[in-house]
Amino acid sequence: MKRIDSFETLRAVLAEFAAERDWDQFHNPKNLAMALAGETGELIEHFQWLTFEESANLPKETLAEVELEMADVLLFLTRLADKLGIDLLQAAEKKLALNAQKYPVEKAKGKATKYTRL
Amino acid sequence: MKRIDSFETLRAVLAEFAAERDWDQFHNPKNLAMALAGETGELIEHFQWLTFEESANLPKETLAEVELEMADVLLFLTRLADKLGIDLLQAAEKKLALNAQKYPVEKAKGKATKYTRL
Amino acid sequence: MKRIDSFETLRAVLAEFAAERDWDQFHNPKNLAMALAGETGELIEHFQWLTFEESANLPKETLAEVELEMADVLLFLTRLADKLGIDLLQAAEKKLALNAQKYPVEKAKGKATKYTRL
Amino acid sequence: MKRIDSFETLRAVLAEFAAERDWDQFHNPKNLAMALAGETGELIEHFQWLTFEESANLPKETLAEVELEMADVLLFLTRLADKLGIDLLQAAEKKLALNAQKYPVEKAKGKATKYTRL
Repeated sequence: MKRIDSFETLRAVLAEFAAERDWDQFHNPKNLAMALAGETGELIEHFQWLTFEESANLPKETLAEVELEMADVLLFLTRLADKLGIDLLQAAEKKLALNAQKYPVEKAKGKATKYTRL
Repeated sequence: MKRIDSFETLRAVLAEFAAERDWDQFHNPKNLAMALAGETGELIEHFQWLTFEESANLPKETLAEVELEMADVLLFLTRLADKLGIDLLQAAEKKLALNAQKYPVEKAKGKATKYTRL
Repeated sequence: MKRIDSFETLRAVLAEFAAERDWDQFHNPKNLAMALAGETGELIEHFQWLTFEESANLPKETLAEVELEMADVLLFLTRLADKLGIDLLQAAEKKLALNAQKYPVEKAKGKATKYTRL
Repeated sequence: MKRIDSFETLRAVLAEFAAERDWDQFHNPKNLAMALAGETGELIEHFQWLTFEESANLPKETLAEVELEMADVLLFLTRLADKLGIDLLQAAEKKLALNAQKYPVEKAKGKATKYTRL
C-alpha cells in the first residue's frame, strides 16, 4: 500500500481503489454524500454518552476505533470532492476567509452562542 | 489569510483561529464530533431530492454551496483529529490497508451489497 | 412488555425503562440528540448504495433491520421530546400548518427544487 | 388543517400532503432516509456547543426551533415508514422487547459504557 503523504495522493489512491473494483458505478455524489453521513453517524456514537472530559480522554481501544471512523469520513469526503471536481484544501481556505470575516476576534471571543461556528 | 497548502497547515491555522477566539473551551471532542455531524447533515440536504445524474451535474451555485459545506466538514474533522492527537492521513493509510484486505479486487468487483464499503 | 398503542404509552414506557436502569443521568437532551443522530446514521447506511427502485423493494432481512433502526430513531426522538417537554404530535401539527403555507399546492406541484421540503 | 391526534392520522395527512403536491415521485425510501438524516443534522446543531445543563434549559426561542426540527424528523420518519409498509409503534414495541433482553435491569443499572443503548 502506497504511503499517503498528501491529500492529492489520497485522492489518487482512492480513485484507483474504486476503479479496480468497478465501484464508480456506485460512487455518484448522492451516494457518496450519504455514505459520508453514515460514517459520521458511526463516529458520533462513540461520544454520545460521554462527558466532555471523557471525550478528551478516550481509552486506547476506543481511540483506535474513532481513528478508523474518522478515516472513513475523510475517505468519503475526499472521494466526493474528487467526483465533484472540488479541491478540498482550497475550499477550506475559502471557508476560513469567510469565517474570519464572520467571526472577527473582538466580537467572537469566548462566545458560544452566536459567534461559535468554526 | 495564510495559504492552506497541506493538512498540517490547515490544522495549525484552525488551532490558532480557535485560540484567538477563546474557543478551545467549546472544542472538546464530543462537541466537535457533534458539529461535524451537523455539517454533514447540511451537506446531504443538497442531495436529498436529486437523481444520481443531477447529483453529478450540480448547478454552479449549488456546487459553490456544497463546496463550503464540505469545507466545514473538513474543518471540524481536522479540528477533532487535532484534539484527539490523530494524524488523519496516517489514519487514512491504516484504513485503506484494512479495506484492501476486506475487499480484495477479485471478490469485490462490481458488487454493491457486501463488498462496497469504501 | 406492555403493548405500545400510542405515542403517550411509548413515552411512558421509555421513561420507566430509563428510570429502572438509572439512565436518566445520561439522558440529557444533548446526549439524546446525539444518540438520535447516531441511529439515523445507521439507518441511512442501509440505503447508501441502492437505486431508488432497490430502496423501495428491500429484501426481507434488510427490511427487518431497517425496521429496528427506525424504531431506534423513534425511541430517542420520543425520549428527547419527553425530556424537553415537547408533545411530538402537536409539534407535527404545527409544522404541517407551516408547510401548508410554505408549499401551497399550486406552487409546489411536482417541484423538487424549491418547494420540496416535506 | 386536521388535528393530528395519532400516528395513523399523521401518516394519512402526510400521504395526502405529498399526493396533492405530486411529491411521491421524490419520496422513495432512499430520498426520505436522506431527508431524515438532514433534519437530524439540523436538530443537533442546536445542541452542539451547549453543556448538558444548558441543553436541558433551552431559551424559549431555541426550544421553539428545536420543536419544529423534531417535528421534521418525525414527519420524514413517518413518511419513510409509510413507504416501507412499517408500523412504527409496532416496530418500537419489537425493539423495546429486544432492549429489555439486551439490557436487563440488574446488569445495565447506571452503566453508560456497555449497557446504555436505549
